[in-house]
Amino acid sequence: MTPSDLLTAPASTSLQAKLTNLRALMQEYQLDAYLIPSADEHLNEYLPEAKQRRMWVSGFTGSAGDFLVGRESSWLFVDFRYHEQADLEVDLSLVHVSKLGMEGHNTVVETLETLGQKVAGFRLGFDPFTIPVEQYRTFQNKLKSAGVELVPVNQNLVDIVRSQSPWVESDPIPALGDSKVFYVPNEVTGATIEQKLGRIREAMRAHKTEIFPITKLDQLAWLFNLRGWDIPYNPVFIAYAIVTPNEAFLLTNLDRIDTEVRQFLQDSVTLLPYEKYTETLNALISQESQGKVLLDPKQTTMGTYQLIDKNRIVETANPIEGMKARKNAVEVEQMKGANLKSSRGKVRTLKWISEQLASGQQLSELDVANAIAQFYQQQPDFQGLSFNTIAGAGTNSSIVHYGTPSPNVLLSEGQFFLLDSGAQYLGGTTDATRTIIVGEPTPEQILRYTEVLKAHINCAMQRFPKGTTGVQLDGITRANMWMEELDYGHGTGHGVGAFLNVHEGPNGISKRAAEPLEPGMVTSIEPGFYLANWGGIRIENLYVVKNLTPESELQADPSKTPWYGFEPLTYIPFDKRLIALDRLELRQRQWLENYHAAVVEKLTPILDPSEADWLREACHLGDR
Amino acid sequence: MTPSDLLTAPASTSLQAKLTNLRALMQEYQLDAYLIPSADEHLNEYLPEAKQRRMWVSGFTGSAGDFLVGRESSWLFVDFRYHEQADLEVDLSLVHVSKLGMEGHNTVVETLETLGQKVAGFRLGFDPFTIPVEQYRTFQNKLKSAGVELVPVNQNLVDIVRSQSPWVESDPIPALGDSKVFYVPNEVTGATIEQKLGRIREAMRAHKTEIFPITKLDQLAWLFNLRGWDIPYNPVFIAYAIVTPNEAFLLTNLDRIDTEVRQFLQDSVTLLPYEKYTETLNALISQESQGKVLLDPKQTTMGTYQLIDKNRIVETANPIEGMKARKNAVEVEQMKGANLKSSRGKVRTLKWISEQLASGQQLSELDVANAIAQFYQQQPDFQGLSFNTIAGAGTNSSIVHYGTPSPNVLLSEGQFFLLDSGAQYLGGTTDATRTIIVGEPTPEQILRYTEVLKAHINCAMQRFPKGTTGVQLDGITRANMWMEELDYGHGTGHGVGAFLNVHEGPNGISKRAAEPLEPGMVTSIEPGFYLANWGGIRIENLYVVKNLTPESELQADPSKTPWYGFEPLTYIPFDKRLIALDRLELRQRQWLENYHAAVVEKLTPILDPSEADWLREACHLGDR
Repeated sequence: MTPSDLLTAPASTSLQAKLTNLRALMQEYQLDAYLIPSADEHLNEYLPEAKQRRMWVSGFTGSAGDFLVGRESSWLFVDFRYHEQADLEVDLSLVHVSKLGMEGHNTVVETLETLGQKVAGFRLGFDPFTIPVEQYRTFQNKLKSAGVELVPVNQNLVDIVRSQSPWVESDPIPALGDSKVFYVPNEVTGATIEQKLGRIREAMRAHKTEIFPITKLDQLAWLFNLRGWDIPYNPVFIAYAIVTPNEAFLLTNLDRIDTEVRQFLQDSVTLLPYEKYTETLNALISQESQGKVLLDPKQTTMGTYQLIDKNRIVETANPIEGMKARKNAVEVEQMKGANLKSSRGKVRTLKWISEQLASGQQLSELDVANAIAQFYQQQPDFQGLSFNTIAGAGTNSSIVHYGTPSPNVLLSEGQFFLLDSGAQYLGGTTDATRTIIVGEPTPEQILRYTEVLKAHINCAMQRFPKGTTGVQLDGITRANMWMEELDYGHGTGHGVGAFLNVHEGPNGISKRAAEPLEPGMVTSIEPGFYLANWGGIRIENLYVVKNLTPESELQADPSKTPWYGFEPLTYIPFDKRLIALDRLELRQRQWLENYHAAVVEKLTPILDPSEADWLREACHLGDR
Repeated sequence: MTPSDLLTAPASTSLQAKLTNLRALMQEYQLDAYLIPSADEHLNEYLPEAKQRRMWVSGFTGSAGDFLVGRESSWLFVDFRYHEQADLEVDLSLVHVSKLGMEGHNTVVETLETLGQKVAGFRLGFDPFTIPVEQYRTFQNKLKSAGVELVPVNQNLVDIVRSQSPWVESDPIPALGDSKVFYVPNEVTGATIEQKLGRIREAMRAHKTEIFPITKLDQLAWLFNLRGWDIPYNPVFIAYAIVTPNEAFLLTNLDRIDTEVRQFLQDSVTLLPYEKYTETLNALISQESQGKVLLDPKQTTMGTYQLIDKNRIVETANPIEGMKARKNAVEVEQMKGANLKSSRGKVRTLKWISEQLASGQQLSELDVANAIAQFYQQQPDFQGLSFNTIAGAGTNSSIVHYGTPSPNVLLSEGQFFLLDSGAQYLGGTTDATRTIIVGEPTPEQILRYTEVLKAHINCAMQRFPKGTTGVQLDGITRANMWMEELDYGHGTGHGVGAFLNVHEGPNGISKRAAEPLEPGMVTSIEPGFYLANWGGIRIENLYVVKNLTPESELQADPSKTPWYGFEPLTYIPFDKRLIALDRLELRQRQWLENYHAAVVEKLTPILDPSEADWLREACHLGDR
């Protein structure tokens, strides 16, 4: 069956027609159900339009959620963030919305178990390039007893129905206007491609492997010092890479690689068309008949895994993740520069808000989101936003992932306004959140804000020994809030790339962040407090992990444990009207005073005099 | 080859003869190396004498360490705790001691990689009943590229050389005098065998499994409300169990099951000889031809795993662990009672120490260890110690696992004395550490002790929401010490059984304790500080996790998060001479005062008047 045999199914086609076409294909493949997860072959957080298959079929636009098509019914599985949105977006006459976590709502696995017990030899089809190896194994272990057979189907059935070619240039970021792949000079990355390849080959040797396929886009953008704009907010381009002891292959749309980039790559990298990935990997495997393949089951799909003889695979954590996370000295400088620009942009925005409000001007959430985008863009080397600005006024501030600033919701007296935003500059990625009060705060607002600020400071000022994980720091951050039975339903911090994704691994600060923090890693610290119909508070800075123990001491005694701490990258004042200074411990108060003094010191030289005056006043804590 | 063909090799045989015999067997099985880990088929922490194979072959008595026999060389791999001890105990002319963590010292895997690269088709033999499934998989993944083949050999080669039958009654605890299996009445366990089997069968149904082999001794002791003394300190007996939807099999040495126990078990349990384990499991598998087998790859050896068709296995966490860890109301009461007895024993010991020293008597470490064993034994229902008492005077207090109290090392003026001990009472297991100063403390001793005490209090008084893990609490405990660049090289806490093992999972408080804490779980909190040649401090209590949110609130709003906290089980004063009260935060001071008041209140009714006077004075903090 070719696409032309199908009912015509352009993007606007009804869900019913899409399901009919999918079921026709399912019959061809003798499938009882077909799973359409959100993930694509590169396991991106944000998906290029061409890979938004689940969205295209179901109409559901949330960032996470799986769609399952059965012979007669279909199901959408969404987490707590999307319980309402899913009901609004999908055709409930055709789709069962399964609200995960709610009583009586089944998971994908539970649904398949029920289906599998009704039909002997139940076959579940899926595109192996949309399922990470580890998830596949979980499925397999759980579905075994229900008699469900997992059937990888190499052609993506949604792509067939959609007449979607595997390669599409997504909408470029409007500010940039084109979507060419471009290179970042070595002065900005601090390491050449050859140096990076050298470190990767060393890791490959240590694991006794000779072939290393790289499928995550930020990993290969880092490796080749290249960037692009195939994905919103993430400066990456769609490609695969394969590294061997003597060669490095980059497989991408070659039309978009211009002469300058070719020259930049020529010594180190062989360029091949994106479509040649499978063929190239197969060829390398049969050439290197003794060589093993390095593969991270968490970061690779079954698509790549199934191309390789199992006995040839050495499973281990992807070595690029750790290298990319530990920024080198040049990258740290670049991150500092970018975050200072971004801090200036947010300080200007805060001043602009206070002046607009003082002059009686009404401001909507969207007004502020537009203003900060402009202030960011005024700085040199601006490349785009690093994520969709969250600008939540009043009760909207309590929605953690509030997505779309409204032109109608106004910043209003006595209410919080939460502004979480960041930008991409050549060399650095930024992310910061400030919560301010419009007008005068209530005592309760001050109390809650002060608790969140104390949580932030407790983490930011913590010294910790080498080996400390983000889970331990997560507990340290929450401890004082927990004593008051306050908490927040998200992690305390995430890794941030150097002119790469605003969310990157392996480090983080959360219940699940088991990776030890190491010097050069960048993390957000962003505790919060949210109460529906009351409002929300989040206070977020970026920090880089620093070694506090003098190198000389470590050299004199190699058994000595190095001690680490956080150095701020973000310099933006906290809203002093919301701080109950008398509730801070002495060392918290000292940290806050030092931080505000540093904000003044770092930003004054790059602000206009009137801005500097405003900032000095904003940073002056007084004795309250 | 039968054992009689071998050189005579009783327990006293030389290492050389043992190695010669092992190598003869290795040749029979065409093995290039044979691995002898510490573990036995039940993955015990402490091993019965019959299963101390690595110790028997190598002469090394440490609790952890693997022995590898090659064709010409042999290796012992030990961690940092045993670097010195290994050198002293093994014949260095025959064994390479590999000190893990030291430069140039290879791990087992690295050693095998090197060996494997020299010999084509290198075969590593091992007893599959001594390797957990998960460890086997790690070995397999890592050794694949070195061309090392893993060869399970079902007969344990050490047992052949040693003429060791698979079943041996180990030395019983002398205080008890026999090693019969005995039952614990339902009034003490709070749940009948049938009730426990019901919960397990429910978990089996949830995982769609029909056969559940149980190989860990504390799990099956808990399930069948039985105890024994086959292992030092752990009140368990050597056995296997298998549960199916309609049957429960207990496989053990039937000579030791007397009529009373048979009557206790008769309705619920089928008794079979220990040796029938493999046969019984095989028979059940072929009977239940559709049924799947529940198996936890972390807690089961390859020995059991390899008996089962892979497609029949459903891998999941062992459901008994979570049930056993959450003590029911009766068990909590039993634990309170046992820990109160044990607290009384330690208070009496502390009083006795202070009086002996005041009267000019000299006390050795061993004197105190003997005294506390006696004080414990004076209490009703005493069953034995829960571990080997750690009684470290002076610089010995800095040795975390200081094993053998010395008759020659005296408690001396100006030095710490650290007493870490516990007992088994019918119904409850105990464990507590106090560090005291002999004579007058220095300001530095006070400072360090106060930091450790603050760490203890910070954890003990922490409120936390449902879902909080032991890793988060570990960070909270260490935070204040870390600010001063102080730390301790062990976990903050471990789970404790109800008249079972003093170390039990799945809960704990440490960098690796990812299990959320739930009401009814018992944990130690035991921060410390250790400096070689200066001394060591550890302050340890047991606590039970309590739900602090009224049930009525949770019922009124099921979406409400329950908040938890710790209730002490241990009531022993801290040494007030070592506490700098002015360095405590207000809420730490309040916790301490409440705790000392509770010590007086709980113990006074069960102490003699002179003891009660001594305790009141020890608990009186004053205003220093």
